Amino acid sequence: MSILTFGHKNPDTDSVCAAIALADLKKKLGEDIAPAMQGELTPESKFVLEKFGVAAPEVVTSYAGKDVYLVDHSDLAQSPDDLGKANILGIVDHHKLGDVTTSQPLECWIWPVGCTCTVIKSMYNFFNVEIPQDIAGILLCAILSDTVIFKSATCTDKDKAACEDLAKISGVDDVQALGMDMFKVKSAVEGTPIRDLVKRDYKDFDMSGNKVGIGQLEVVDLSILDGVKADLAADIATLKKEGGHHSIFLLLTDIIKEGSEVLIVSDDDSVIEKAFGVKPADGKAWLDGVMSRKKQVVPNLEKAFA
Amino acid sequence: MSILTFGHKNPDTDSVCAAIALADLKKKLGEDIAPAMQGELTPESKFVLEKFGVAAPEVVTSYAGKDVYLVDHSDLAQSPDDLGKANILGIVDHHKLGDVTTSQPLECWIWPVGCTCTVIKSMYNFFNVEIPQDIAGILLCAILSDTVIFKSATCTDKDKAACEDLAKISGVDDVQALGMDMFKVKSAVEGTPIRDLVKRDYKDFDMSGNKVGIGQLEVVDLSILDGVKADLAADIATLKKEGGHHSIFLLLTDIIKEGSEVLIVSDDDSVIEKAFGVKPADGKAWLDGVMSRKKQVVPNLEKAFA
Repeated sequence: MSILTFGHKNPDTDSVCAAIALADLKKKLGEDIAPAMQGELTPESKFVLEKFGVAAPEVVTSYAGKDVYLVDHSDLAQSPDDLGKANILGIVDHHKLGDVTTSQPLECWIWPVGCTCTVIKSMYNFFNVEIPQDIAGILLCAILSDTVIFKSATCTDKDKAACEDLAKISGVDDVQALGMDMFKVKSAVEGTPIRDLVKRDYKDFDMSGNKVGIGQLEVVDLSILDGVKADLAADIATLKKEGGHHSIFLLLTDIIKEGSEVLIVSDDDSVIEKAFGVKPADGKAWLDGVMSRKKQVVPNLEKAFA
Repeated sequence: MSILTFGHKNPDTDSVCAAIALADLKKKLGEDIAPAMQGELTPESKFVLEKFGVAAPEVVTSYAGKDVYLVDHSDLAQSPDDLGKANILGIVDHHKLGDVTTSQPLECWIWPVGCTCTVIKSMYNFFNVEIPQDIAGILLCAILSDTVIFKSATCTDKDKAACEDLAKISGVDDVQALGMDMFKVKSAVEGTPIRDLVKRDYKDFDMSGNKVGIGQLEVVDLSILDGVKADLAADIATLKKEGGHHSIFLLLTDIIKEGSEVLIVSDDDSVIEKAFGVKPADGKAWLDGVMSRKKQVVPNLEKAFA
């Protein structure tokens, strides 16, 4: 193939499904293009592709000399290391505008919506190309995943409207049930090493000179984590020693109850009370309504540390 | 107004008309928005707005604390100096992707076409908003300007198709004649100081360690420049002395004959013969078919200097 399209490193369901759908659309518009991905499928993405009978893209990590479309990112840090040697034809995304630049004019479809696949659904409409039933199914799943079944603060009316159309095209009667099935797969912890769970979605921050680590595990029911919670608590304590952190917080987010239990190791755990008005006990606290690290946890902690 | 939309520094007709049209479209989509521009109208833009009875946007140079949409650029160098203190809601453009980044998700419509106004014309269609007759007229003119009446190497089928629709909506029977009227205004040199003509569209380049200046004047007929040609030649010689250049080339481009007469002052004018296969005489040469500085002149000269 002369053109490849791919999402960010550590591909999630949006990155994988957006690449597949954009390749389908562009092929129908006359381009010689195939989807790719920068890493292996997550269990969630695997479930989604199998459910709708769609083949996984090839894993490709080097794009030197290739014509490419980026999906679901515009940051160099999320791009292939040799992106500078590729020719970027376009970007389809739903994030802030990153530091990717080009030396040639290009095609960008970037909208402030909950999911790249919402943008791609509109592109099919714009170009008057019919969405195949299987592609509609994976687009639907990607939107349900990125918007946490419409519960995320990033979800917009455009995402919901796209899902309504996509459910009809793909023949999905119960969108909520599909989303739950998908999140159950995502929630699975069995057989995963504890450190991998801690690091599944983990980031270090500098807060007023203090090194603060914040991880997050999203599950459909906190009871899924009952068997590993003590090990998780022990492991973040180890991680804190290894990394010299002031604090490490691990958010165990229940997407149905819409809140997070936070596991805490800290030199001063009063920051949690300052940040959320909740007094921790036994190294944990329940933060009702708190689901977004980016929009809720980080800003409040930054204020508490200031 | 809480939102402003504006084009690049030294606004051209595309930057001005795209801002006006985007504000019209976004207002109809429910946003509280007005067009602005970073500098005064060129004679060409003034002609276009007067012809279709459209008011000029306000000149605004500071955007701190404002919500903004950029049109016709995504480079910080082309943006207001305090863009970092503005909140970028979106970008509509047709250039390569520049170094503007954002801290929030945004809306980008960037296509590899000849003119930003071609993108905006498609946005009206996408959002099912009727294009007013006067707006259609100025969109049409902007596309004719940026594509040099469809002759530029950057012109695409999308630009031509947009102009066909826009001519119907605006009631313009003779698109070619409108383009010529506009370029006659752009060609006018009377009353303009010689140095302003030299610098109207002028850029310095580093070519293998040599400082090379290249200016361009586009006219509908070279005879327009007969009265000032000797003064232009004398002034680039002065400019060369002032700037310590190896060479200065001033392209006098005839958009009808589709070629350029180049005025030359150089420490070694054989570079012109090396670059274009034409031997200069009396400090000038006719370069048949050469109209684009970016796509034709700079690459050939860079090879000749290498």
